[in-house]
Amino acid sequence: MSCVFCAIVAGEAPAIRIYEDDGYVAILDIRPFTRGHTLVIPKRHTVDLTDTPPETCADLVRIGQRIAKAARRSGLHADGNNVVINDGKAAFQSVLHIHLHVVPRQSGDKLAFAKGMLVRRDPDREETGRLLREALAEIDADAQEDAP
Amino acid sequence: MSCVFCAIVAGEAPAIRIYEDDGYVAILDIRPFTRGHTLVIPKRHTVDLTDTPPETCADLVRIGQRIAKAARRSGLHADGNNVVINDGKAAFQSVLHIHLHVVPRQSGDKLAFAKGMLVRRDPDREETGRLLREALAEIDADAQEDAP
Repeated sequence: MSCVFCAIVAGEAPAIRIYEDDGYVAILDIRPFTRGHTLVIPKRHTVDLTDTPPETCADLVRIGQRIAKAARRSGLHADGNNVVINDGKAAFQSVLHIHLHVVPRQSGDKLAFAKGMLVRRDPDREETGRLLREALAEIDADAQEDAP
Repeated sequence: MSCVFCAIVAGEAPAIRIYEDDGYVAILDIRPFTRGHTLVIPKRHTVDLTDTPPETCADLVRIGQRIAKAARRSGLHADGNNVVINDGKAAFQSVLHIHLHVVPRQSGDKLAFAKGMLVRRDPDREETGRLLREALAEIDADAQEDAP
C-alpha cells in the first residue's frame, strides 16, 4: 500500500490511536512539534482541499475541536492549540492524504515550540496517547450528562 | 466596540470583504503572511475552540475550503494553502474573536513566505480582493451548473 495513512487505517502500519469512528481515525504524529501533536485522518483517501468533500472537511474540524478541548483538559495541560490543514505540497503537506493537525500549545512555549519543530520527538508517546484518550472520554461523559 | 472583528461585522471598521453571508464574513488580513491571506469570521462573537459551537467551526472550514479553492483558481495562482485556527493566546491567537486563516502558498515560496511573516504587507490589497472575489464567483457558477 503506497499511502502510509491508508496503511494505518487498514491496520497494516502501527500508530498510537487517540480516536476512531466509522469514517475517521486520529493518531499521534510520529514527528510531533509539541507533545500531543495529533493528526485527524479520513479513512477514505483524498488528497487535499481540491478533492475532499466539504462535509469531510467539516468532520475533520469537529473532531479536531474535541481533541483540542481534550488537550486543554488533559494531563498535557495545553493552554491552546494550532489547528491546521496544509492544503498541497506548496503548503508543507508531506503526506498526500488529507489530514488535520492539532498542535497543543502552552503559554510562553515559543522557544520550546521552535525547538520542537526541529527535534520533533516525544520521549513518552504511549503516556501522551493515554492522557489524550482519557480526556476525550471525560469530554464525552460530560456531553452525555448535558444531553436532555 | 472593543472587539475589532465585531466592529468590522457591524460595518464600523473598514475591511476588504471577500465573502459574506448571514452568519459569516471573510476579509483580507491587514497584515498578510502572503498575498490573499484571508480571515473567515463568524458574525456572532465567541473567543476560541472552547466556547464556539462545533457547527460554527464546521462552517468556518467549509467557507475556508471554498476560499482556498478560489486562491488556486484566481489570478493569485496559489498552488496550495495553509488553513489554520489559532485556538488561544498561547497558540498565537491575536484577536480574541475566533477566526480561520486561509494563507495562499506557491511552490518554492519558502523564503518569500518567511519574509512575508516579517513584512506582512500587500502592495495592492484592492486588486487582491478583486481577484479572490472573481474566483469565488466562478466557483459558485460552476457549482450551479453541476447541480441536478
